[in-house]
Amino acid sequence: MDKPSIKPYIEEISGLVGSSLEIILPDFWEVPARLTKSMKYSLMAGGKRLRPLLVIAAAESLGASKEAALPVACAVEMVHTYSLIHDDLPAMDDDDYRRGKLTNHKVFGEAMAILAGDGLLTHAFYSIVQASRQQGVSADNVLSIIEELAVYAGPSGMVGGQVADMEGEQGLTGLEQLRYIHQHKTGDLIVFSLKAGGRVASASAAQLAALETYGRCIGLAFQIQDDILDLVGDEAKLGKKTQSDVKQGKVTYPYFIGLEASRAEVDRLTLTAKEAITDGSIPNPGNLLDIADYLLQRDH
Amino acid sequence: MDKPSIKPYIEEISGLVGSSLEIILPDFWEVPARLTKSMKYSLMAGGKRLRPLLVIAAAESLGASKEAALPVACAVEMVHTYSLIHDDLPAMDDDDYRRGKLTNHKVFGEAMAILAGDGLLTHAFYSIVQASRQQGVSADNVLSIIEELAVYAGPSGMVGGQVADMEGEQGLTGLEQLRYIHQHKTGDLIVFSLKAGGRVASASAAQLAALETYGRCIGLAFQIQDDILDLVGDEAKLGKKTQSDVKQGKVTYPYFIGLEASRAEVDRLTLTAKEAITDGSIPNPGNLLDIADYLLQRDH
Repeated sequence: MDKPSIKPYIEEISGLVGSSLEIILPDFWEVPARLTKSMKYSLMAGGKRLRPLLVIAAAESLGASKEAALPVACAVEMVHTYSLIHDDLPAMDDDDYRRGKLTNHKVFGEAMAILAGDGLLTHAFYSIVQASRQQGVSADNVLSIIEELAVYAGPSGMVGGQVADMEGEQGLTGLEQLRYIHQHKTGDLIVFSLKAGGRVASASAAQLAALETYGRCIGLAFQIQDDILDLVGDEAKLGKKTQSDVKQGKVTYPYFIGLEASRAEVDRLTLTAKEAITDGSIPNPGNLLDIADYLLQRDH
Repeated sequence: MDKPSIKPYIEEISGLVGSSLEIILPDFWEVPARLTKSMKYSLMAGGKRLRPLLVIAAAESLGASKEAALPVACAVEMVHTYSLIHDDLPAMDDDDYRRGKLTNHKVFGEAMAILAGDGLLTHAFYSIVQASRQQGVSADNVLSIIEELAVYAGPSGMVGGQVADMEGEQGLTGLEQLRYIHQHKTGDLIVFSLKAGGRVASASAAQLAALETYGRCIGLAFQIQDDILDLVGDEAKLGKKTQSDVKQGKVTYPYFIGLEASRAEVDRLTLTAKEAITDGSIPNPGNLLDIADYLLQRDH
């Protein structure tokens, strides 16, 4: 079933986030020009803005405004972008292209790419504090958002997932390890996005739990879908070579359980995600429900 | 004039910080073992713990306890350590040794060194939040500390200074640029340490200004002293080859204004630093005064 109704919402938020990211690091901050350029190059390299979308949709599902959630939405995009820049480095995945464009280090050199990533990660925390300074989100809620970002993006979260992925390339042992990698490398930042959006709206514990389940399920569904698209997807739409994971010897969900079972798992996770936020705890779950369906149908 | 009285204080704090850093990332966090090992290798590689010392001494100068300042003190050491790990990478300074030990990437490989740095930077923000969670520092004060860390360690601070340093190696133009590099690459994190310690003790604007001036002056003095020691120091004490900056074509303070004028500048800055905190605004400036003298006399 096609859901065209959610597309204008996605585009509106993508535009809002893009405009906001354009004006980080204004001239009076006296950042070296080439560093600003390198950071913005990757921030503006055509990402889907999925994580900011989830932050804002979660905040709105509990009655907060887009504007209140915007500093946190921009922060999570900065963290996501830094992780891509560092992942693409020669010492890591050694990728020359991402989304059809040259990777950061191919344009600005390795040293600058490392520092652009460091700068984005650091500046993300500045952006989150602005939720309090500019939007009046309580200091307690902002502190919790910062604490969770440090956990979900840190050594036991995204960075840990990246390490496990790296070690996995030297011989992955099973589905459990793949699940660990997916959960931490990709899933944790998605879960963070939902919970942080909730916290912008002063979510209750029950609401945070519902958003976490929703996030955990769509995060894993998203990643399995990525595995599937990598196997069968259209090269132009993905902006990278398909079957690249197979060629690199990376094991994926389809590798372990087959293509059809992987598709069924995406369906099952999407359903569980939707059930979690329609238990009555979330006042306005409409956009989040549509986003879950939208992700299920994506082809890139 | 020798000041033996400050050494036990420095050693006490170094021990306190070392013990606290030892127990970050406990097993139940489920961090990949090799990542924990890599992060701790550099955290425990024999640093002077100067920045944590300044955090704690600043907090105590305004009547707060060592314990209240400890989470922030550990955070600043994590940030300092991450910056050293990334600076040492082949794409950056390409150093094999630091403080007489193999650099992180020489032991754990480049990919792990990048991720260990990323993990330390991220976890630093978690540690700062614990000043509120465990020590009761107000959420407002902790938010200000986080905001300032993001500024002083970010694109317009330490990361910007590192970029300027990198670009400077391709031909440094003058003393102004060298001052910019010193201010941001080294000075900013020292200024942050003083102000953050002050904020742990709910410092007034006047107290923060005094601590900032003190920090700015000893930060620059420290860096000029480093330039001097690099030129004339004892190789064994520094744990790296002396005159290495000259060999690499890096320009330094002695290069621009001569050795004697550089020494005079260190003296002048130390005096200005001490005057800033003896204007009556800081109730107990004793340890900070002794630290300024101690840094002046160091030979490594």
